[in-house]
Amino acid sequence: MSSQKNRHFRLRSRPVGMVQASNFDFVTGEVAEPAEGEVLVQVQYLSLDPAMRGWMNDARSYMPPVAIGEVMRAGGIGKVVTSADPSLAVGDTVTGLLGIQDYAVVKAKSLSRVDPALAPLPRFLGALGAPGMTAYFGFLEVCAPKSGDTVVVSGAAGAVGGLVGQIAKLEGCRVIGIAGGPDKCRYLTEELGFDAAIDYKAGDVFKTLRGLAPKGVDVYFDNVGGDLLDIVLAQLARHARIAICGAISQYNNTTPIQGPKNYLSLLLNRARMEGFVVFDYAPRYAEGVKAIAGWLADGSIKAREDVVAGLETFPETLLKLFRGENFGKLVLKVAD
Amino acid sequence: MSSQKNRHFRLRSRPVGMVQASNFDFVTGEVAEPAEGEVLVQVQYLSLDPAMRGWMNDARSYMPPVAIGEVMRAGGIGKVVTSADPSLAVGDTVTGLLGIQDYAVVKAKSLSRVDPALAPLPRFLGALGAPGMTAYFGFLEVCAPKSGDTVVVSGAAGAVGGLVGQIAKLEGCRVIGIAGGPDKCRYLTEELGFDAAIDYKAGDVFKTLRGLAPKGVDVYFDNVGGDLLDIVLAQLARHARIAICGAISQYNNTTPIQGPKNYLSLLLNRARMEGFVVFDYAPRYAEGVKAIAGWLADGSIKAREDVVAGLETFPETLLKLFRGENFGKLVLKVAD
Repeated sequence: MSSQKNRHFRLRSRPVGMVQASNFDFVTGEVAEPAEGEVLVQVQYLSLDPAMRGWMNDARSYMPPVAIGEVMRAGGIGKVVTSADPSLAVGDTVTGLLGIQDYAVVKAKSLSRVDPALAPLPRFLGALGAPGMTAYFGFLEVCAPKSGDTVVVSGAAGAVGGLVGQIAKLEGCRVIGIAGGPDKCRYLTEELGFDAAIDYKAGDVFKTLRGLAPKGVDVYFDNVGGDLLDIVLAQLARHARIAICGAISQYNNTTPIQGPKNYLSLLLNRARMEGFVVFDYAPRYAEGVKAIAGWLADGSIKAREDVVAGLETFPETLLKLFRGENFGKLVLKVAD
Repeated sequence: MSSQKNRHFRLRSRPVGMVQASNFDFVTGEVAEPAEGEVLVQVQYLSLDPAMRGWMNDARSYMPPVAIGEVMRAGGIGKVVTSADPSLAVGDTVTGLLGIQDYAVVKAKSLSRVDPALAPLPRFLGALGAPGMTAYFGFLEVCAPKSGDTVVVSGAAGAVGGLVGQIAKLEGCRVIGIAGGPDKCRYLTEELGFDAAIDYKAGDVFKTLRGLAPKGVDVYFDNVGGDLLDIVLAQLARHARIAICGAISQYNNTTPIQGPKNYLSLLLNRARMEGFVVFDYAPRYAEGVKAIAGWLADGSIKAREDVVAGLETFPETLLKLFRGENFGKLVLKVAD
């Protein structure tokens, strides 16, 4: 592999407001050799996630920030091309934090081996990866759904939201998705089996939700924060549960985060709002993967990936997330 | 009793911003006769609570608003002077919603009989009344404290906060109270046994809390909302629990409620924020009263009432709450 070059994106500067191409350096370098306990992975697909915006800030979080000059952190899937660890062989397909680059040298024990015959590779970054686990554990554990509950999910056409809604349907809930634009809304009701969809870019979301959930919202799975969180807070049912999965509407703010001014609805409705981080469920991922793979196999749920080709497109492709342009799990294709 | 007059405060107008004396009419009328199933109660003490501000708004809540022209709602304790119901006799001491007046005609079944020999009457409106139940069930049920937890309580020198901190000490927690002024802070540490107190009117509360709780806050019992909620959110420990009991800093706002801009700390710390209404625990009040009465009797906890004499002082006395001037449970003395 030493004749190959490794193209990679390094964090040049921390974004102020919306992330920009100029926050990265696109550099071509040599492919490194793995030291003992490491492997060299050729990256095939990379996962682009809202959380990446947070990793670019110099702030305390559940992971340290990406350092200036460091390869931009990203989850991915690829093939082992050189192994200096007995646990992985050349040709193995692995997932883990590979970074925005063609070739990654990583510790073998930080990777998970997957069977590429089980699903198309991008799916291991979506329904069978972190977004799938986020939907499965975040919804079932944090939201504690009951059959008959009215469930609202924002970012419903995204990687996590689409799965949350479908799992909620399997649990016997009534599901309302919030997404941007008629195409996504049609996808939710016609393809994914949501009971209703609200286009947050059109009409009066508060009134539309009131009409669709006249008895209030039992569960809200929130990916976006901002005004939508306040709208749902104002329409909670008694003993409602809100899972705070993310707040993509706020990640590129230059002003302080918009706090939910209707939070006292938690008091009025004896409701709770709870945050979670999917990595905490890592010891139970096998359970989640088995469940989702089973539902995919028997047609109970559908998954969709939005695959964009070309490592070099990374900064522009990442922006699709924050513009709400992705449709399903956003994946960057680096190599076949 | 027909020779007596009934002085009472009626809601004249809904406050905009801070409640004012002009929002009430102070009227003298005849004492009514109880119909069948009702009793006439001579009011002795009335409970003045932050929640009364919410009842004055024309907004959906856990109770209907007080109507314009209606006697202002308030909990109280008094003596039955005429009974038209077999369950209560003349001379019985009862608690319930009596209203801001000298004499109340109320349904017998809406009242609870208490034994006046067990405690001074104002205490039945404080530690042995709704504030006591709020502290007991709100802290033990919603906050799920564990021995060794660092517990922060705001409004700590108020009726609820002082009890929460003392119950937390009994549960083996480290307790930090937030209150206004050196007298209240000294009371918390020297009289009530809090480990530390923070005067929110002096110095940098964020830094002081960081120094007192370097490993973060496990439990926050919030009575005030506003900036203090954001300060504590920013310093949560993993798996922290926040009980939303009230938000007295926000009740007289003319601007929208200040939402907690640091709410994403719930995600980072896998924490939850939960609201509650004490009336939901009514079926278990006997348990709460027994526990608190026991602790009072054996000296494990202390209760303090701030008694102001004179029904006619009601509007001005109520303002003590919102100015943070009360010290312990605020009670209006109407008659001996």
